[in-house]
Amino acid sequence: MKKSILLITAALLAAGCCDTVNDEQPMCPTTAEATISTIMNRKSVRSFTGEAVADSTITQLLRAAMAAPSGRNIQPWHYVVLRDTTRYTAIFGESNFNLPIFKAAAAVVVFCADTTVTAPPRDNPQAEAVTRPNGLWRDDLGASTENFLLAAEAVGLGAVWTALYPYPERYMPVKEALLLPDNVVPYCAVPLGVPTGNDQPKDKWKPERVHYERW
Amino acid sequence: MKKSILLITAALLAAGCCDTVNDEQPMCPTTAEATISTIMNRKSVRSFTGEAVADSTITQLLRAAMAAPSGRNIQPWHYVVLRDTTRYTAIFGESNFNLPIFKAAAAVVVFCADTTVTAPPRDNPQAEAVTRPNGLWRDDLGASTENFLLAAEAVGLGAVWTALYPYPERYMPVKEALLLPDNVVPYCAVPLGVPTGNDQPKDKWKPERVHYERW
Repeated sequence: MKKSILLITAALLAAGCCDTVNDEQPMCPTTAEATISTIMNRKSVRSFTGEAVADSTITQLLRAAMAAPSGRNIQPWHYVVLRDTTRYTAIFGESNFNLPIFKAAAAVVVFCADTTVTAPPRDNPQAEAVTRPNGLWRDDLGASTENFLLAAEAVGLGAVWTALYPYPERYMPVKEALLLPDNVVPYCAVPLGVPTGNDQPKDKWKPERVHYERW
Repeated sequence: MKKSILLITAALLAAGCCDTVNDEQPMCPTTAEATISTIMNRKSVRSFTGEAVADSTITQLLRAAMAAPSGRNIQPWHYVVLRDTTRYTAIFGESNFNLPIFKAAAAVVVFCADTTVTAPPRDNPQAEAVTRPNGLWRDDLGASTENFLLAAEAVGLGAVWTALYPYPERYMPVKEALLLPDNVVPYCAVPLGVPTGNDQPKDKWKPERVHYERW
């Protein structure tokens, strides 16, 4: 009997449930494996089940969005979370071909940017703050949007980046409808929801795009 | 004796080594937890140990970079991997204040973009392909750069996004030194290496940046 229970214990161990990949995690994919699988599995999701998404989940994704790198750490981003589908046509304009996707999603997050920065001149940190254009806001918003899309993929939700900027016919109606200040521009609109599973990631690997030392 | 071994077995189970967070993974952080921790832990790393990074690792990070979303799936990105530090001053120009960081890194990846697209007019897919500006290349490059930075963080490496575009005094010397075609612009330079641990992530969460339904 003792022997049989030892065998059970041995089997438990052999099954690997206490086998260690590293010191911390029994049988776990590494953070690298999990993160890179999320990056490779992220896809543009345009088909949603219609299920709701909790505000707390959206907040978690926005925390990820605000963790993006920012030129000179200016953090120009703002986010407008939309749920009232009755306003979507007025906000985005009837010509926005993504309206049906927006209306099928649980929410649409409009990524916005303050295109200005108010600070002392770079060459004179002691001087009075002045307001000037921030040349890197668009890059910060791109990184912030990608963080949001990856966090959505990671928690099992679907989203798709739909461009507003640099197209005035797309972003100006949104700027007006959302009552954005003069210095704030709507960058993109990201519908978020529970994916149906219809959308799949693309394999975009092109080794010829990698060059060494020169073109 | 049987009892004591049962207790050992019970203790093994109570220790949780076979406790399941979900059906697949005993005791594992979820993909969501791992991915979001990578996003929140990513930091701008400017201090490197000087250790080398394998080409295969850089390739893995570039696979992640090319998995970024791309407007109309144009995928405008190209990457130039630099290791020959003797050329860095000539490539980036003596005025680039990031030169010391570049020289301390294991490699510098210059993210580049084809700013044009050659395809039939959108309103006439049957017509002959024409070359025109791609209005979304900068957004695609921002997402691609963030994927690379997150993949680097995930595998335990450090990197930092240093802007070249939109500053001609920074990107023109690089464009010339790397022999880039007329339609290709250097977007940013990302030094990559083994971090010393000196650099830490910033908490950028600002709930006041989240708006609901309108500004």
